[in-house]
Formats: sequence, structure tokens, C-alpha cells
Amino acid sequence: MDDTAFLDATAQAELVRSGDATPVELVEAAIARVEELNGELNAVIHPLFDKALDAARAASRAGTQADVPDGPFRGVPIVLKDHDGESAGDPVCHGMQLLKDVGLTGERDSFLFQRLRSAGFIPVGKTNTPELGLMPTTEPRAFGPTRNPWNTGHTPGGSSGGSAAAVASGMVPVGHAGDGGGSIRIPSSACGLFGLKPTRGRTSMGPDEQNPWQGLVVRHVLTRTVRDSAAVLDTIAGSEPGDPYREPLPERPFVDEVGADPGTLRVGLLTTSPLSETDPECVAAAEETGALLESLGHHVEPAVSDALTDASVLEHFVVIISSWVRADLDALGERIGYAITADDVEPMTGFYADNAANYSAAQYITGIEALHEWSRRVLAWWASGFDLLLTPTLAIPPPKIGELIPPEDNPLDGLVRQSAMAAYTGPFNMTGQPAASLPLSWTDDGLPVGSQLVAATGREDLLVRVSSQLEEARPWADLRPPVAAGS
Amino acid sequence: MDDTAFLDATAQAELVRSGDATPVELVEAAIARVEELNGELNAVIHPLFDKALDAARAASRAGTQADVPDGPFRGVPIVLKDHDGESAGDPVCHGMQLLKDVGLTGERDSFLFQRLRSAGFIPVGKTNTPELGLMPTTEPRAFGPTRNPWNTGHTPGGSSGGSAAAVASGMVPVGHAGDGGGSIRIPSSACGLFGLKPTRGRTSMGPDEQNPWQGLVVRHVLTRTVRDSAAVLDTIAGSEPGDPYREPLPERPFVDEVGADPGTLRVGLLTTSPLSETDPECVAAAEETGALLESLGHHVEPAVSDALTDASVLEHFVVIISSWVRADLDALGERIGYAITADDVEPMTGFYADNAANYSAAQYITGIEALHEWSRRVLAWWASGFDLLLTPTLAIPPPKIGELIPPEDNPLDGLVRQSAMAAYTGPFNMTGQPAASLPLSWTDDGLPVGSQLVAATGREDLLVRVSSQLEEARPWADLRPPVAAGS
Repeated sequence: MDDTAFLDATAQAELVRSGDATPVELVEAAIARVEELNGELNAVIHPLFDKALDAARAASRAGTQADVPDGPFRGVPIVLKDHDGESAGDPVCHGMQLLKDVGLTGERDSFLFQRLRSAGFIPVGKTNTPELGLMPTTEPRAFGPTRNPWNTGHTPGGSSGGSAAAVASGMVPVGHAGDGGGSIRIPSSACGLFGLKPTRGRTSMGPDEQNPWQGLVVRHVLTRTVRDSAAVLDTIAGSEPGDPYREPLPERPFVDEVGADPGTLRVGLLTTSPLSETDPECVAAAEETGALLESLGHHVEPAVSDALTDASVLEHFVVIISSWVRADLDALGERIGYAITADDVEPMTGFYADNAANYSAAQYITGIEALHEWSRRVLAWWASGFDLLLTPTLAIPPPKIGELIPPEDNPLDGLVRQSAMAAYTGPFNMTGQPAASLPLSWTDDGLPVGSQLVAATGREDLLVRVSSQLEEARPWADLRPPVAAGS
Repeated sequence: MDDTAFLDATAQAELVRSGDATPVELVEAAIARVEELNGELNAVIHPLFDKALDAARAASRAGTQADVPDGPFRGVPIVLKDHDGESAGDPVCHGMQLLKDVGLTGERDSFLFQRLRSAGFIPVGKTNTPELGLMPTTEPRAFGPTRNPWNTGHTPGGSSGGSAAAVASGMVPVGHAGDGGGSIRIPSSACGLFGLKPTRGRTSMGPDEQNPWQGLVVRHVLTRTVRDSAAVLDTIAGSEPGDPYREPLPERPFVDEVGADPGTLRVGLLTTSPLSETDPECVAAAEETGALLESLGHHVEPAVSDALTDASVLEHFVVIISSWVRADLDALGERIGYAITADDVEPMTGFYADNAANYSAAQYITGIEALHEWSRRVLAWWASGFDLLLTPTLAIPPPKIGELIPPEDNPLDGLVRQSAMAAYTGPFNMTGQPAASLPLSWTDDGLPVGSQLVAATGREDLLVRVSSQLEEARPWADLRPPVAAGS
């Protein structure tokens, strides 16, 4: 049996419910695909096969034992990113050689992982990530590069590149991911996946993390179908007591928005950024999506907003990231009993860590206040009557492996080029709005190029509606990368 | 006409609606009371009488002109605190001699003041506050002490002490206030008022402020009745686009909770704090309220929680406040074109400002993360099945004027004694929970002693229900301070 490779999670779960497949069969098939493809892709860096098979055997007994989750995705395989949350007893490396050497493991499941397990998902492995999730590519020195299933000479994007390669190649239907500057949307765009970054506060960071990157980080999954992303979000949405941000639950499940009529939407199109020249193929992709939206009856017009094209936000972003890198290394150092310095990490990470010394607490506050003030100006565009902003997800198609890694002696060069690539995604981490990348275009060379749709705060429902409309109008599910299960 | 002095805002608004009083009559009566009492109390430091009379004349024409607000509180006088928001064209001093000398004025109304005006309220003056709202008393050098209407030798508390003295003495029914460590609840307790600190994110700080004190500050009003506090909250609740925190609106208006049956509640009683010895009269007040709750059918039992009695939170509070004082002085300095130093402010403010230099951005982040982690542990107590926590609002009855001001050469002494006084209020600014002070007890010397009720995040509805039940069981509305309008 391996015709499950390109079934989405909703379809795989249905096989279990109907009795046409058991959790053990689904998980064994996923493990076989990881073993078949991982040598070429390097997506999964910590296999969890034995634990997964144990969980699958238990899941096959669901309903007979109270301690076995019988959620909507019972028995469906998933991968977890080795960043953006910890799982009990599994390796925790965040892409760092030091943590790999130390052999750090997670003490308990994050709330997000608890909820994914309660929904029935079974993790078959943990996936590759750049050091501390800091790059829009996935090439940590500690674990080597993950490769793009559409062209293994290219990056799958990052920081959730390991999960993206696993899902795009058909290893699993769903990959856990987090997004602090684009890390859900970037690899989705690069690997031809659907990637929805939820609103700040939609999913909890607890219990061991609180407010990572000052609210810029949100977490969810990468999927091949819109319905999977919506249905999984239903299982993980909702705050836990003490969360710094609380986004109220929607009036009805997100999955009910799949196929629902979005009405006639007013959409602004933005294809320029002060942080980057935008590649003509990326501009063309967004324009094609705009034309498709027009053909579906929506109104598309140029988006005009001083705030949306204000380059000063990058400066605040650097203050936040630098300070958090230093604080995160301090916390990890406390945990392993060793004071981590810039010498213990890759040059760009070290640059951030050392740069943090330039900022006092008061300067950090001043930066955060400026960022929030800017966010008010950005949101004013939506409040002025627009429903959605349409942009290219990335300013360039997926670069070749190695291209985004800065020279040893000039880490700032990496920061500049990586920020340029992510020019369209980062701003909406700062505002906390929901945004999705849709796989609607491919370059002449066959690399995926995503289009990004951004909604007002709390309006994932609208993103699901219009995304499912676009998915129906221009289906992508039958497109298969060259490196894929069974190919 | 001056029988409106001790009518609450709901009753005064009803007089306007029924035609039994005009907005001009209500505002003229309030102005007369300010003129009668302010010499003794020093509550109002910036009279806005001419503007108020203009607004009252306009309000008398409401319905005939589109630009005149016809909200539920049309024509009702209010006072605004000279901190926690700015109003267009009015003085902005934050209790600082420097800003008084410079003559700084507000450029535009804060969202909160816009909403209060839209609701129909007419500001008759701005009220006294300690420098930058930093003390639980109201004795700025720049404006002199505000005095407690119950005993003018004592403090009305702070930082919203000017508003509290104005409302308690009958000048106006409603006083604007903000609460970053207890500044709504403390003066309510000291002046025999009802003071509800809403959930973080319930009211907006915008457009010119974003996330003051890292989310510890929330804003609302002080009132004499529970129904006023609930009805005003209905007019100001709700987020604006770009707010860092968004608390969803309740399913029905808060005012509908007044008189609604709270059911049988499980209430924990806490009368000890690691930050302070608690005065026996304050312990007795909370115990009396506990007995009253028992008599109403609720279950009261000792509250046991390691988190609630963890003194380490004070340390994080000092990091936050120090860093924000420095950042706020920087921002004010930029506005007036002068670099403000510790020499330009009172000794305790200067202590905070200088202390900020001890914290890097990364250390600030580490402190915030610890605070959020502690908040999760505090909230776990509510999640374990308790509805409400009951405490004394203050650890001591209202001290004498001057007692809380530190000696010139030892500002830390002020911080220690003020933190001790506010030991029961500050923790719930850090967690972001709603909490209210109820005027249910008086000392043998005739000074008010409040009881604090704390609910889970977002549950102001429950606080309104149970507060109105207590107000009905033990009415306080007919108690009048010695210094009161018409007395």
C-alpha cells in the first residue's frame, strides 16, 4: 500500500474512520516514504519511528482505551519541526551543533503538540531548521541542507524547510511549522504548499514559551490542501490560561469556510517593496493571482499605503531579533549549564547575539512602541475598506542551496539578502495579521512561486474562504515534484 | 439645583433624557461643586470650565445637529486624569514640574477620550496624579497633594487620586483612571468608591500610546455605583485596528449583568502577602466580605497557590517600570526638545530612570518571559475550579499625607513601602486579569477599606454580577464623606 502518499490528512483520517486503513498502515507507509526520500532531501533529522509505531498501535485501539486520543485525525502521520515547540523525550536542537552535541531533549510537550496528539496525529520525525529558525533557508551547519523536492539544487525555503520538503514530497500530509518573519509562508511558497500563518494569539506558545519574538512568532502547519490547514487550525486554535495574547475562537469552525462563498471582495495588489527588487516572475505570479481573483468577481486594484512601503520597520525587526537571540541563548545556556557565546553558533546567529549588546531595555521598548504605532498605520488600510492585500510571497524564486548563506566574515550580508527575500512576509509578523501563501504559479524552470493573501486581524475565516475558491478554480493538488513518493 | 451631587451618571443621564435637567444645568452644578470643594481637596488641577460649558450648550442641541454626540451619557460631567491619555488642546503634565513649566498640551484625543465624548460625557477638568502615575498616593511636587474627602489629613491613594477625590466628594459621578499596579483599585479603596480594572486589551491605548508598561496598564473609570462602571465600560470596550491586545466583546452588555444572578460561586480568600504585613483592619475587611459572600450562598475557602504568594514578581515589576520610565522620559524629551534626566524629576522617578541603565534589552526580555510564565501559574488557580479570589485591596488603610513620600536621599524606601501597600493589586496587572475594589468596610476612624475581587481573564461580566449583588446586600451609596458637596 502506498497510494496514501498524496492523500491529504482529511482523506487519510477518513480511511481510518471507514476501516479502509489502520493507523499502523498509515504510519508504516509514511515511515517507508521517509526512508525512501530522506537521503535525497534531508527533511527529517530525528526519526521517531519506534515511538510512532507504538502510538499507531495504540491508536488502532482507540475507543477501547480512555487514554488513546480519538480525534478527527486519528492515526494520521505528521512531522514536527525541531524548533517552535518541544515534544517530550525527543531531541531539541534548534539547528545548533552545540545542542546536538549535548543531546538536549524536550521535557514535556508544548500545548500545540498536546493538541495535535489529541487530534490523533502521530509524529514520525522531527524536521530540519536553520539555527534558531533565523533564516529563510534550511541549511544549518549541524545537520546540512534540506533540499527542495521540485529541484534538489534549490532551497525549500525556511525556517520550516524540513517540514515543507517532507509534505511536498509526500512523506506526510501535514508538517508542523512556526512563522516569525515568514517561516510558514516562505517554505510553502518555495515548495508549492498551502501555508497559513494565523493571527497572533490564535495558538498558544505555552507552557514553556510565552511571547517569542515579542509576538511576531505564530505557529500552525504546512499542508497540501486548504481544507487540511483549516481543519487542523480548528484542532489547535484557542488560548490557554495565562497566554499573553488571546484571539477569540471563530463563530463556526474554520473548516466550514472551505467552499463557502466569500462574496465580492476588495483586494489591493502590491508588488513593490522598499526592502527588495522583486523578481519579474514573482511579480507575474501575484498579477496572475490578481487576474484569477478578478475572473472570480472580486475587485483588484493597486494597494496604496505609506505604511506598507515604510522601510523603517526592518530596523525595529533587527532590534527585536537580536535581543531575542541573546535572551534565547541565555535561557538555553542556563538549561545546559554553559554560557553560550557568539563562538558557539553560526556567524549570522553570532552577529545577532553580539548586536543585542547595542540595545538597552529602554531602547527595546522604544522600538516596540514604534513598531506598534506602525502596525496601527498598516491596519488602517484594511479599516479603510479593503478585505485583502495580495502580494508575491517571496521577492525571488527559491534560490540555490548555499546562495543565502553569508560569507564567514560578513554575516550582515546574509541579513540583508535574506530580509530582501522575505520583504513581503515579515511585515505581517510585526502587525500580527493572518496571511497565507497559495501555490498558484511556477517559474519557467518549474519552481513554485506562491502568492500571499493578507487579511485583517482575526480574519483567517476569510483567508480560508477565498483560498478554497482559488484552489477550486486553479487546482494544484495533482502537480507532483520530481522527487516524490512513488515517482 | 444641587441635588445632583450624589446622583450617579446613569441617574444624571436619565434627567437629561426625561427633560428634567439640561446638560448645561448638570455641568454648571458640577463646576460649582469643583469650585466649592477643590480648595480643600486639590483634586482638579486643570479646570476646563469654558470648554465644558460650550460642550454642554452643544449637547443641549443634540439630535438637531449631526456633530453633537447623543450617547447614553449625554450631558453628564466627568473628570479626566492628567495621565493615562491625552485630550486635544488640554494641559499634559503627568505630574511633572518640567511639563507644567513647558506648557505641554495634547494634540488629539486618545481613543478612550473619543469614546467617552461620543458617549456624551463632558470633561469639566483634569485631575491630579503623581509623577508619571508611579505612586499609590497623589502628592506631586508640581501640584501639591490631593486630599481624601473622608479625612483630609490622609491620602486618597493613587495614582488616580485626583479623580477619586472628585468622585467621592460628589463633584462628578465618574472619573477617568488608569491602573498599571493598582491605580484604579487603590484610590477606589481609599475613597470608598467602586473601581473595576478591566482585562488587558479591553480598552484601547491608542492612537498615541501602544503597550504602556508592557501591557500592565489598563484604563477605565472610578464610580460610586456598580451600574455606572458597567455601563461606562460598555461605551469604551472594544479594540481599535492595530491594538497589541484585543479582548473580545462580551456576548451581552456588561450593564445587563447588574442584578443578574451570579449563581453559586467558589471563592478563595487570601489575606497574606510576601510583600507586606497586612493591617488587621484590612484583613478584617476581606473577611467581612467573605462572610457576606457566604451569607449570599457562595462558597468561601482559603486560597492556596504557590504562584499567588511568590515574591519574585516584584523584581520583574521593577525591571519593567524602570525601563518604561526611561523610555517615557526619552519620548517626552523628544517631544519638548530637551533631554530629560533624573535631575528633572522627583527622586523616586529619577531612581527608576537611572535604574533602567542596569537592564539590557535581552535582560528585559528574560524578565518579561519570567513574568508571563508566572502568570500562567497564577491563572492555573482559576482554571482549577475557582471563580473568584477575594483579598484586601490594600495592605494598609489610607496613610497620612506625606507618609509614603520617600526621603530625598533614599528613594528606594518609597518603592519598598509603596509596593507593600499595593501588594494585593500589582500582581493582577502582571497577569492582565480583571479585578475590582468594592467599598464594603470602614476603619474605626472612618476611613474606607476596600475588598478586592479578582476574576479569570475576560470575566468582567462575573465581577459586575457579584459586585452588584454585594452592593444590593450592603449598600454604600448613602454614606457621605465629611468633605462632600452640599455638606
